[in-house]
Amino acid sequence: MSEDDIDQLRQRFAREAMALMERKGEEVNRAKLAAELGIARARVDLAFPEEADLLEAVTGEWFAPKLAVMDEVMETDLPPRRKMYEFFARRYALLRDNYQNDPATFRLYVEMGERYFEYAQTYIDLADHYLCELIAQAQAEGHFEGLEINTALSLINQSVLCYIQPYLIAMIDTRLSEEKLAHIIDALFDGMSAADRGARGKRGLRAA
Amino acid sequence: MSEDDIDQLRQRFAREAMALMERKGEEVNRAKLAAELGIARARVDLAFPEEADLLEAVTGEWFAPKLAVMDEVMETDLPPRRKMYEFFARRYALLRDNYQNDPATFRLYVEMGERYFEYAQTYIDLADHYLCELIAQAQAEGHFEGLEINTALSLINQSVLCYIQPYLIAMIDTRLSEEKLAHIIDALFDGMSAADRGARGKRGLRAA
Repeated sequence: MSEDDIDQLRQRFAREAMALMERKGEEVNRAKLAAELGIARARVDLAFPEEADLLEAVTGEWFAPKLAVMDEVMETDLPPRRKMYEFFARRYALLRDNYQNDPATFRLYVEMGERYFEYAQTYIDLADHYLCELIAQAQAEGHFEGLEINTALSLINQSVLCYIQPYLIAMIDTRLSEEKLAHIIDALFDGMSAADRGARGKRGLRAA
Repeated sequence: MSEDDIDQLRQRFAREAMALMERKGEEVNRAKLAAELGIARARVDLAFPEEADLLEAVTGEWFAPKLAVMDEVMETDLPPRRKMYEFFARRYALLRDNYQNDPATFRLYVEMGERYFEYAQTYIDLADHYLCELIAQAQAEGHFEGLEINTALSLINQSVLCYIQPYLIAMIDTRLSEEKLAHIIDALFDGMSAADRGARGKRGLRAA
C-alpha cells in the first residue's frame, strides 16, 4: 500500500470511528473499530499503528471544518474589525450547530478534548497564529495601541472565550449570539489599549 | 432544640462535611458524614432532613466568602469603573487561592456545581443583581450607552467569564491575572455601547 492509500484509509477509518461514536455515545478505540466494522484488526493497525494515531486522526477530522472557515476568512480583504469578527463568528456558528444537532456527541468530544488535550494543541496554535496576524493588521490601523501582540492575543481570547470554547458553548448556548459577539469585538477595537484608564487603581477600596 | 441551635448545628456539620471532602477527595452524603464523625444519623438528619439540605448548606458555606467580598465592594463609594473591577477581581482572587491551595478539592466543587447547579443559582442571581446596580451607576456616567441593562449584564459576564467561572479558573489559571482583568474592564467601559461600529457587517465575506 502506498502512503497515499494509507492516508485515505486513515481518513476513512477516522470518519467511521466518528460515526460509531455518534451512534454508540462512547469513545472508540482500535479494537472496537475493527469489531464494529467487521474488518481485520491488522488493517486498522496499518492505518493507526498506535492508539494515539486514531485519536489524532479523529481530532483532525473534527477540527478540519473549523480550520476551513478560519482559512476562508483569512484570505479575504475585509478590514481588520470585520475580519476578526468573522474569524470568531464563523467558527462559533459551526460549533453551535455541532452542539445543537447532537448535544450528547458534542459533549463526548468535549470530554475527549479534555483528556487528550495534546492532539488539539496544533489547531489552537494555528488559530492563535492567525489571530496574531489579525492583531498586527488592526494595530497598523491604530487599534490595541501599545499592547504587545501576545498580550493582545491573550486579552482577546479571554474576552471571547465563550464563543470558541466547546465546553462553554454547550453550557451557555442560549445566552450566546452573533449580535453579542459583535458588541464584544467592537468594544475591544474601540476600548482595548495598553493605557491604564483607572479600572485597577492603587488605593484598595477607598475612592481616589 | 431551638431554630438557632439547629442553624448552628447545620453550619457546623456543613463545615465538617467540607473538611471531610478535602480529606477524602470525594463527595459526602449524610450517611458518610454520620459515620465519619461518629455521631448518630438522627442528629445529622435533624440538621439536614433531606440529602438536598446538606448540599445546599455546603454550597452556602462555599459561596459565603465570595458573597462577603462582593458585599464589601458594593458598600464602597468607589467610582463605577473601579468598583466593577474590584467586584470581579476580589472574587477572582479568592477563587484562584482556593484553586491553588487545593486543586483536587476545587475540582470536586466544580463537578458538584455542575451536578447540583440549582443550589448555586441563588448566588449567581445575587451577583447579577449587584452587577446590574453597577451598570446603572456606570450608565449614569455615560458608559455602556444605549444598552439595555440586561444586555450589558450579559455582555460583561461573557467578557470576564474566565475570571468568575471556577471551571475556567482551574483550566487556564496561569494565563489569568488582575492586570489582564483590568485591561478588559477598561475596554468595556471605553468601548462597549449599543452602537454598531462595523464588526458584524452586512455583506458576508466581501469588503464594503
